[in-house]
Amino acid sequence: MSAAISLKETAELLLANDDFAIICHASPDGDTLGGAYALCGALQKLQKRAKVLVPEEPSKRFDYLHSGIEPQEFNEEFIITIDVADSALLGKFEEKHKTPDLCIDHHVSNTGYAKRLLLDSEAAAACEVVFELIKELGDNIITADIASCLYTGISTDTGCFRFSNTTAKTHRFAAELIEYGFDCSGLNYLLFEIRTKDRIKLEKQALESVEFYLNGRCAVIIFTKEMLESADDEDINAISALPRQIEGVEAGVTFKEKEAGVWKISIRTKNYMNAQVICAKFGGGGHQRAAGCRITGDVRDCKEKILTEIERHLKKQKGE
Amino acid sequence: MSAAISLKETAELLLANDDFAIICHASPDGDTLGGAYALCGALQKLQKRAKVLVPEEPSKRFDYLHSGIEPQEFNEEFIITIDVADSALLGKFEEKHKTPDLCIDHHVSNTGYAKRLLLDSEAAAACEVVFELIKELGDNIITADIASCLYTGISTDTGCFRFSNTTAKTHRFAAELIEYGFDCSGLNYLLFEIRTKDRIKLEKQALESVEFYLNGRCAVIIFTKEMLESADDEDINAISALPRQIEGVEAGVTFKEKEAGVWKISIRTKNYMNAQVICAKFGGGGHQRAAGCRITGDVRDCKEKILTEIERHLKKQKGE
Repeated sequence: MSAAISLKETAELLLANDDFAIICHASPDGDTLGGAYALCGALQKLQKRAKVLVPEEPSKRFDYLHSGIEPQEFNEEFIITIDVADSALLGKFEEKHKTPDLCIDHHVSNTGYAKRLLLDSEAAAACEVVFELIKELGDNIITADIASCLYTGISTDTGCFRFSNTTAKTHRFAAELIEYGFDCSGLNYLLFEIRTKDRIKLEKQALESVEFYLNGRCAVIIFTKEMLESADDEDINAISALPRQIEGVEAGVTFKEKEAGVWKISIRTKNYMNAQVICAKFGGGGHQRAAGCRITGDVRDCKEKILTEIERHLKKQKGE
Repeated sequence: MSAAISLKETAELLLANDDFAIICHASPDGDTLGGAYALCGALQKLQKRAKVLVPEEPSKRFDYLHSGIEPQEFNEEFIITIDVADSALLGKFEEKHKTPDLCIDHHVSNTGYAKRLLLDSEAAAACEVVFELIKELGDNIITADIASCLYTGISTDTGCFRFSNTTAKTHRFAAELIEYGFDCSGLNYLLFEIRTKDRIKLEKQALESVEFYLNGRCAVIIFTKEMLESADDEDINAISALPRQIEGVEAGVTFKEKEAGVWKISIRTKNYMNAQVICAKFGGGGHQRAAGCRITGDVRDCKEKILTEIERHLKKQKGE
């Protein structure tokens, strides 16, 4: 089990060490990447050697995050993970770095796999914690590049300040970061607005294919392998949010065909249904309002299985 | 021409008067409504009589805005307009209230039709100005209801903190407002997430109908009267943002058929084109990156006119 340490202790630890490798989680998102590149930039600014390791290729839209980083070759001495709740999420780095020196996180579910843990489970994003840590490391460290990395994590993990994890502190951090002068509206455009023609096509197909079940309380979207071929992961994620957004829908379900007959299923629920329990039934997991699993077989049979389970839970939870 | 007055002068003026009518603009949006109900609530808290006049029925989703308002019957003595750049936007109230006592606005294009003008053209929303004004009126006026009205204006006019008008100050205001304790994530769900089945249908039609012109730098969506029949104004607004979001598009244009052959046109631009200048050519107005106008005639002719003007500006601004 990790030793919980404070911001001040973490800053002292980093100042006393060198040759850092900062590792992101698999299926890297804006928060793990933004936090890692921000901290890497800050350590380099302090004349330390630091690099970022990403277990899987990130979406191209995040390329700007390493624009302020100097590539450095060295043997890592101090291992940090950011936004990684469980060592299993380290992907190809799991075996080598099962017990990192430090984990910086905001997941209440953090398994305590690292030697030391800087955790703030009230933080909307790991980048909020990294921001506070960099301020603790010293003055005049944060550049416009570092600010744009931190803003990326904070804005993406809160759905651009929409989700319930957004707090007054989140907005105050955004205000401070914007004052470092990076192109915030350009970044917002890139993260939340831009739609490639491929995405428009995918969205159109998604809207055309929405099916409603259980008196409109469940909406299903199906993406076949062919539809997903030229699609960007971040686009698919964004579109997967759609079924739950529909009025009256409690459970939004997205079917993605990974290989012929192998379906990755994502369930997002609105107010009362536990998506995790449903997905656990099929060997999956996640959170209460967003979970996933895999099923193999004909799409109609798979849909039937999932819908039966959802109906059972709807009846139970609504006391029908 | 209006006399420009300061926040302090405006506060003194309001404290010295009574029996206020606060008027919103036609096609009322979250900013004009939020600002009007917030100020109305603040004046009532100060034991003044105040009411809000809305020239057109607002979207049902804004019903919560008047939950903190006490309906009062009286003859109005002091007329205030909020977020109304031109008296022509007062709709059915234009004739009677052509020259209001005070206009509170953030449009640089404000025509100065009111006797006095409190204008901050740097403000992302009229609600930012109203927030500052209420703070100037005294302490302990702002309730959770008033805060939710102000947050509504600020968040809707910035596309939930995405658009280029968002500043550090915008985020600081959001932070302050959230601390008044209204249900911010519930509000965000209502304003930015929920999609009715009608909206899904409209979105599908919009995506199917996108047309590209001028080497993909201009995207056009056309909503016929029939398509708009069961549509909510806010849904149409949200979908109007779509053409500009497409990769490579500088000018996104939405045509909405108000009556047979009468087109309300909304132009949203991305980086360099001045939408206001183009709309002014057709008697419209707005901001640099979002403006509107009306044209009458056959859709093909109207499109031709708008596209010719956009092409002229594209060439001029890109120095072609």
